[in-house]
Amino acid sequence: KKSYNVVVLPGDGIGPEVVEQAVRVLELVSSKSKDFELNLKSYNFGGVAIDAAGKPLPDDTRNACKAADAILLGAVGGPKWGVGKVRPEQGLLDIRKELDLYANIRPASFPSESLLAYSPLKESIAKGTDIIVVRELVKGLYYGDRKEADLDTPGGDGEATDMMVYNRADVQRITRLAAYLALQQSPPAKLHSVDKANVLATSRLWRRVVTETVQHEFGDKGLELDHSLVDSTAMLMVSNPRKLNGILLTENMFGDILSDESSVIPGSLGLLPSASLSGLPDGKSRCNGLYEPIHGSAPDIAGQGIANPIGTILSAALLLRWSLGQKEAAENIESAVRKVLDTEQMGGLGLRTKDLGGEASTKEVGDKVCAEL
Amino acid sequence: KKSYNVVVLPGDGIGPEVVEQAVRVLELVSSKSKDFELNLKSYNFGGVAIDAAGKPLPDDTRNACKAADAILLGAVGGPKWGVGKVRPEQGLLDIRKELDLYANIRPASFPSESLLAYSPLKESIAKGTDIIVVRELVKGLYYGDRKEADLDTPGGDGEATDMMVYNRADVQRITRLAAYLALQQSPPAKLHSVDKANVLATSRLWRRVVTETVQHEFGDKGLELDHSLVDSTAMLMVSNPRKLNGILLTENMFGDILSDESSVIPGSLGLLPSASLSGLPDGKSRCNGLYEPIHGSAPDIAGQGIANPIGTILSAALLLRWSLGQKEAAENIESAVRKVLDTEQMGGLGLRTKDLGGEASTKEVGDKVCAEL
Ligand SMILES: CC(C)[C@H](C(=O)O)[C@@H](O)C(=O)O
Ligand SMILES: CC(C)[C@H](C(=O)O)[C@@H](O)C(=O)O
Repeated sequence: KKSYNVVVLPGDGIGPEVVEQAVRVLELVSSKSKDFELNLKSYNFGGVAIDAAGKPLPDDTRNACKAADAILLGAVGGPKWGVGKVRPEQGLLDIRKELDLYANIRPASFPSESLLAYSPLKESIAKGTDIIVVRELVKGLYYGDRKEADLDTPGGDGEATDMMVYNRADVQRITRLAAYLALQQSPPAKLHSVDKANVLATSRLWRRVVTETVQHEFGDKGLELDHSLVDSTAMLMVSNPRKLNGILLTENMFGDILSDESSVIPGSLGLLPSASLSGLPDGKSRCNGLYEPIHGSAPDIAGQGIANPIGTILSAALLLRWSLGQKEAAENIESAVRKVLDTEQMGGLGLRTKDLGGEASTKEVGDKVCAEL
Repeated sequence: KKSYNVVVLPGDGIGPEVVEQAVRVLELVSSKSKDFELNLKSYNFGGVAIDAAGKPLPDDTRNACKAADAILLGAVGGPKWGVGKVRPEQGLLDIRKELDLYANIRPASFPSESLLAYSPLKESIAKGTDIIVVRELVKGLYYGDRKEADLDTPGGDGEATDMMVYNRADVQRITRLAAYLALQQSPPAKLHSVDKANVLATSRLWRRVVTETVQHEFGDKGLELDHSLVDSTAMLMVSNPRKLNGILLTENMFGDILSDESSVIPGSLGLLPSASLSGLPDGKSRCNGLYEPIHGSAPDIAGQGIANPIGTILSAALLLRWSLGQKEAAENIESAVRKVLDTEQMGGLGLRTKDLGGEASTKEVGDKVCAEL
């Protein structure tokens, strides 16, 4: 029986509440499995870690993360730490770099067709949207050298700079990971690479290396690739998102913007999972990944027990599939979630939290997912 | 009688067709006015200039633009020049820098409520959207030093870099212009500044200088200012765009993405105008501005006479208002356009081109706008 260490970082705001339900689901899956067991252990991270230890990523948390098979995170941040010099988000930026989590993966699709009414897009436009954003996560503007402006010295030039940096190897590895995910689907998903090659040198590098990597390494696998500009992609995401169905591959800053834009299409942020990976999720390599719902810490509803735990539960499913290679357990969780969300006409329970017009509590949703399992 | 020189750059694709109708409107307005007359003269720019003179911004065009009171542009680019080393878009980037057109202004609102059906957003979400994006246009990633990757020398590091640069004066002047536009509305429009201050040094500079400029120079004018992050703004633009009503002030690259995203809300790209200004549009300073519809050159429908000329006609209205200080003439054009677009129930003509489900030709729309004037 395989044994996996999973580090749990509940974090701030509604983080602990939603993580609690996902942990229940993981423990149930673990106790029922003949193939593997999970050792789950919680650590401080984000705002709570600043309060407890003066920094968002304390050393014991860092070391536990480095040694883990996978990490499950709730959410970090909140107005309490928003203005301080030490901010919770810095913990997130640090851990991405430290674990070399170079690929952020965010699916935007409808877990149940019955949710179309919640999309801000007309149903005819939103219907069938099925985009997986693959965002490069440890290079670009986020980690290049920067110069803060000196605005207080009289006569200072008051100039700030940020540097966007990419090299060939950076683009190759994220392209391989995107191609891997595309080829997991059958027929293979389309690969849409997004850049600003009509302006940026890093984008011209990006376009060329993506093209070469796909041609040389996946040319015989029937992978389709196209390129578009970030501005027209931001338009298309709203006007006709199905045209972007497949894998949307892009660099760090563009990916930050486009993945957030894509995530409102399915109507509830509370439903969507994400993963940040340091290698191909092929079950062969030890893939250290960090999994988290895409919603934030939502301090306004924290402690009320009404937050939607589905995004975190689906993140736990991705963790099983991609970091632990436990595909079946992942699928079981995903179908249990679908059953809970689907309306009664569709044979489901229609059990929903407040963000989806329902009245169920965080715990009730967790209960039902466990019961379905 | 004042006399103004207006340079006309028809450009590529549908550019000449839509510009032709806007020129008719401007000539009519000029011939009817007791206060001013317009001298309109066309020059080569973009792809047609590459074909004629080997470069997208030939010297005579450049000189005419520098000497003009305002510039009206159709569209540039197309597959014909897409791959070449000399690209039409470079002409646009050059002229922005050369004329120091530091403020790009793109309103996203419904010229007529009867167009709500064309929005990709649910009508209840789209209704009442009224955002003016003010984008800094001559700094940031677009004009910082860059290094192209050397991917052909064996053993080269294959690294590319782009530099994002802003200084205090850059942010001050665009803030003043945005504040000026906010105060033109009554009550003053809200100012929403957008950045990525949790990551970028240029964004921290941006946020501080915007705040200081508004406080010191507009503190007594009741101007409301808030700050948000580019990723959550990209979400809000889709999920609840009315929350962004007012002036959305941002830097060059973020503005490129967000202005394109905002422009699909009103449902037809063919309707929306834009302006790029080198000074406050206060009618006092000589404000050299470039005005263009936001749609592209649409090579697929070029030459068929079916393109929507409204975006260009409304750009001509902005030209009259902002560069020439002819507010009344601008308003006359805008109400003529509204009359032509509005449905018959609303007392209008409901005359529309194909992009809006109608059958009118480019010229018919121009005819009717002229008739209404
Ligand atoms: C918190 C912030 C630094 C982070 C980012 O910009 O990467 C967040 O927006 C995200 O997308 O995970
Ligand atoms: C053509 C291109 C260089 C340009 C830009 O990115 O500024 C365009 O997208 C725009 O927004 O006017």
